[in-house]
Amino acid sequence: MQKKEHILIIGAGLCGSLLALRMAQQGYSIDLVEKRPDLRKADISAGRSINLAFSDRGMKGMKLVGLEEKVTELCIPMYGRMLHDREGNTKLSKYSGRDHEYINSISRGGLNALLLDEIEQFENVQLHFNLSCKEVDLKETKAVFTNENGEEITLKADYIFGTDGAGSVVRKSMMQQRDFLFSFSQNFLTHGYKELSFPATKDNSYAADAGALHIWPRGENMLIALPNLDKTFTVTLFLAYEGGDYNFNNLTHPEMVKEYFQKEYPDALALMPDLATEYFENPTAPLGTVRCSPWTYRNALIMGDAAHAIVPFYGQGMNASFEDVVEFDQILQAQDFDFTEAFQQFSKSRKKDADAIADLALDNFHEMKSHTANDLFLKKRKLEIAFETEFPDEYSSKYSLVTFEEGISYDEALQKGRAQDHAILRLLKNNQLKKDETLATQLQQVQEETKVILEEQELL
Amino acid sequence: MQKKEHILIIGAGLCGSLLALRMAQQGYSIDLVEKRPDLRKADISAGRSINLAFSDRGMKGMKLVGLEEKVTELCIPMYGRMLHDREGNTKLSKYSGRDHEYINSISRGGLNALLLDEIEQFENVQLHFNLSCKEVDLKETKAVFTNENGEEITLKADYIFGTDGAGSVVRKSMMQQRDFLFSFSQNFLTHGYKELSFPATKDNSYAADAGALHIWPRGENMLIALPNLDKTFTVTLFLAYEGGDYNFNNLTHPEMVKEYFQKEYPDALALMPDLATEYFENPTAPLGTVRCSPWTYRNALIMGDAAHAIVPFYGQGMNASFEDVVEFDQILQAQDFDFTEAFQQFSKSRKKDADAIADLALDNFHEMKSHTANDLFLKKRKLEIAFETEFPDEYSSKYSLVTFEEGISYDEALQKGRAQDHAILRLLKNNQLKKDETLATQLQQVQEETKVILEEQELL
Repeated sequence: MQKKEHILIIGAGLCGSLLALRMAQQGYSIDLVEKRPDLRKADISAGRSINLAFSDRGMKGMKLVGLEEKVTELCIPMYGRMLHDREGNTKLSKYSGRDHEYINSISRGGLNALLLDEIEQFENVQLHFNLSCKEVDLKETKAVFTNENGEEITLKADYIFGTDGAGSVVRKSMMQQRDFLFSFSQNFLTHGYKELSFPATKDNSYAADAGALHIWPRGENMLIALPNLDKTFTVTLFLAYEGGDYNFNNLTHPEMVKEYFQKEYPDALALMPDLATEYFENPTAPLGTVRCSPWTYRNALIMGDAAHAIVPFYGQGMNASFEDVVEFDQILQAQDFDFTEAFQQFSKSRKKDADAIADLALDNFHEMKSHTANDLFLKKRKLEIAFETEFPDEYSSKYSLVTFEEGISYDEALQKGRAQDHAILRLLKNNQLKKDETLATQLQQVQEETKVILEEQELL
Repeated sequence: MQKKEHILIIGAGLCGSLLALRMAQQGYSIDLVEKRPDLRKADISAGRSINLAFSDRGMKGMKLVGLEEKVTELCIPMYGRMLHDREGNTKLSKYSGRDHEYINSISRGGLNALLLDEIEQFENVQLHFNLSCKEVDLKETKAVFTNENGEEITLKADYIFGTDGAGSVVRKSMMQQRDFLFSFSQNFLTHGYKELSFPATKDNSYAADAGALHIWPRGENMLIALPNLDKTFTVTLFLAYEGGDYNFNNLTHPEMVKEYFQKEYPDALALMPDLATEYFENPTAPLGTVRCSPWTYRNALIMGDAAHAIVPFYGQGMNASFEDVVEFDQILQAQDFDFTEAFQQFSKSRKKDADAIADLALDNFHEMKSHTANDLFLKKRKLEIAFETEFPDEYSSKYSLVTFEEGISYDEALQKGRAQDHAILRLLKNNQLKKDETLATQLQQVQEETKVILEEQELL
């Protein structure tokens, strides 16, 4: 059934496309506007964020629109982190003790194309490419765009969604038009990232194990690699802009880049015939976290990266955006399709989850790059995998809570996960977890100590 | 001795004036520019932030420029918080168990005038009023101002200091000209504030005890009052913009304002003959925290509120800004007056202290407005005052560490103070602090538990 409200969605990336598809299914008349060309017709990757980690919260979004099976065809399961040391030795650190829990490498472009293809089957959606948003007039609920020829085009709607990413023009318009009551932060790490690649081997197979997310943790910096369907890997270097012997500011010659890789990542270097070319052709991009509040003003709402851009270290950016769409859809239905009320409620209820995954992603950067450094952490991880294997219904690590337990919120996962980590580290440090105790007894100890910690936090 | 560098200081509020005075004493040639008129000649208070809490870190700044004695004449000592309940009963909660530790109520205008008077005795300082900064060109180290007639004036310098407050134009120029590597946040509370007053009594004395900071804690909202030298009190209402029975958005009629005060603050209302007039004439202002990083770019540095605006609940905003000047002065001397190096070092070393006092100030809002609610907190406070009284050299509460121990940094005060709070609350909750033990034994218990907590935090 056709609904009367007209909706303008600004940004046809992953979040905007999923939202448009869902709203189209609900019968709304929609303009979906994207500043870039149609990614199904032009290569617009520009060397950034080629593949992503897709997991259970993202899958909730695909289930919502009935694309569970189609998305699975795009997925390459990764069962754990394959850690590479300087000598090229590898060790698999599993993501979970439960065999059915893994994350997936997925192509950003492939996933986005899947959503756009579905959207085009709906007559109530008008898709616009190459229209760059200049400004949103929140009072009049209209937006001004410029097309390829520099001409201005204005679109009006009953409701506007800003799904236009970390640099959101909709958010900037909110900030300007609300003035001092709009809280906002942008925080950058001292590190940037650059995408590189492992090509397929001569006999067209993967150059490394495609069933894992590869990590070369080197304390302050790291390299990671995720498989693609075409047998290549996308390799990402996370490196400080300054400081240390090698950094983005001082790696200015091909010889230096090779010297750095030879020293830190020799087994990866052996798989990268085009390293020097890619290094200097591909952009170096910053790693930032954007938070703001509220997410709604008048008849507009921002969602996804526009409302909460996070660093990529938990592999949850796209998953969080897809969960936004699921949560919003639930709220909209609960509010009997009253957008004004749904905007307010979503902005309030979802904020703490967005803050939680932003914090978790920052924490994980430090864990990933210094992965092998801390003996206590390794012991903790071993114990948690044993708990998950032996007592699959009774224990989930913080990583599992965040990544695989899509039924609980990010905020709950953070609170419980951090308390568990705290409990295990405390017990290990005080030698209170005796090895001669059964695993069941150790689990009970951890659960009790976790409860104590959670109760104590209530006090503070 | 005259130094060769020419310095431009934008903003002649408290921080900029102290900085200018110190730099003048060091022999630099200075332009000190203020957008407002000379506050010694015009009343520009506009109903906001009339008086401030001046304490030991602020005094460090005044000692640095030799104004210790003159500033003392402006100070009204406040020995504790006088808590007022709804029935008008009062109870003094002392700031410290040591008699020589107290904070002072001081007039913002009086303090600023003292600094400006001193500055005018230096021929190497050029003071400019009514010059509003439009933009800073960081590449050229120059700034464009507009005067009262709308004419543009450009001032060039070797080094520029931005001490232009929370809405800093220098910071905005840094943000624009550095683009993505400038981290920035502005966060607003859901509460605003409005300044009101108690006039002097008919026989020209204080309407309430002038030796205390008065608080009417009411859970979500609160009223506070600080004495002025002219026997009046400046009274500040901290109230939510929305929600609850009464808020800034719904108090739109004099009768409602009186009804609210009658219900929540009856003993204060009795001292406020001009409440309705003041309430509607004085502005409602937001409460925000501004953080950013770095504080320097090219030949410019921001300082004070421009770099770290905080909410007023620890009474440390001005004290933190004065400590900035002291810290910068030390670094500049240690760097043999190399500004470029000093800017970098100050921006790095001072940031964590600015973040610490911002966090502490936010925490204190919740403590102040719900002051009497929690039994455990009252027990903790009683114990801490006993420790400070009996063992003055061995214990300082978080409040004392922040406010009276100017020899340790805000960040140290936060870490140690929070761990102590945690320790005492944990011991109280678990009934581990036995009343039949001596106070010395209890202190030892708290110190040991604090150590355990600090060690555990290292782990996480």
